Amino acid sequence: MKPMKHTEIKQQFGAAIRKLRMEQKMTQEELAGRTGLHRTYISEVERGERNVSLENIVKLANALRTHVSSVFLLIEKGE
Amino acid sequence: MKPMKHTEIKQQFGAAIRKLRMEQKMTQEELAGRTGLHRTYISEVERGERNVSLENIVKLANALRTHVSSVFLLIEKGE
Repeated sequence: MKPMKHTEIKQQFGAAIRKLRMEQKMTQEELAGRTGLHRTYISEVERGERNVSLENIVKLANALRTHVSSVFLLIEKGE
Repeated sequence: MKPMKHTEIKQQFGAAIRKLRMEQKMTQEELAGRTGLHRTYISEVERGERNVSLENIVKLANALRTHVSSVFLLIEKGE
């Protein structure tokens, strides 16, 4: 697995969150409700516009019932 | 592996970075040089005072020649 580029991580993280959310047939509204984050923030994260912080990374992963390490493994494997 | 708490992640992430850095006998100064981040920022991260963002998470992991997923796996395993 090649190292990630810090210039691409926002887009890659957003795509991974979107993939996990859709696999669980969860709406952005539902994910917002589970994390306590605003729906527009969720939408911006998924569009790769947010340099998400540790605490929100954990909130998103927990709400998607996924380990944080698994979210980044998804990205590293390029899935 | 139990889900992480967003209230503890700053301390846990800081401890993991410190552990990885010391295993490689790297100083905070050297890690700062490799990441382009300031040494005091590195020190604050390791003390759990920083809610580190995605881009800096990637810079730190790459500088420590560790996958981002492995950093979080270290935390999830409570090592």
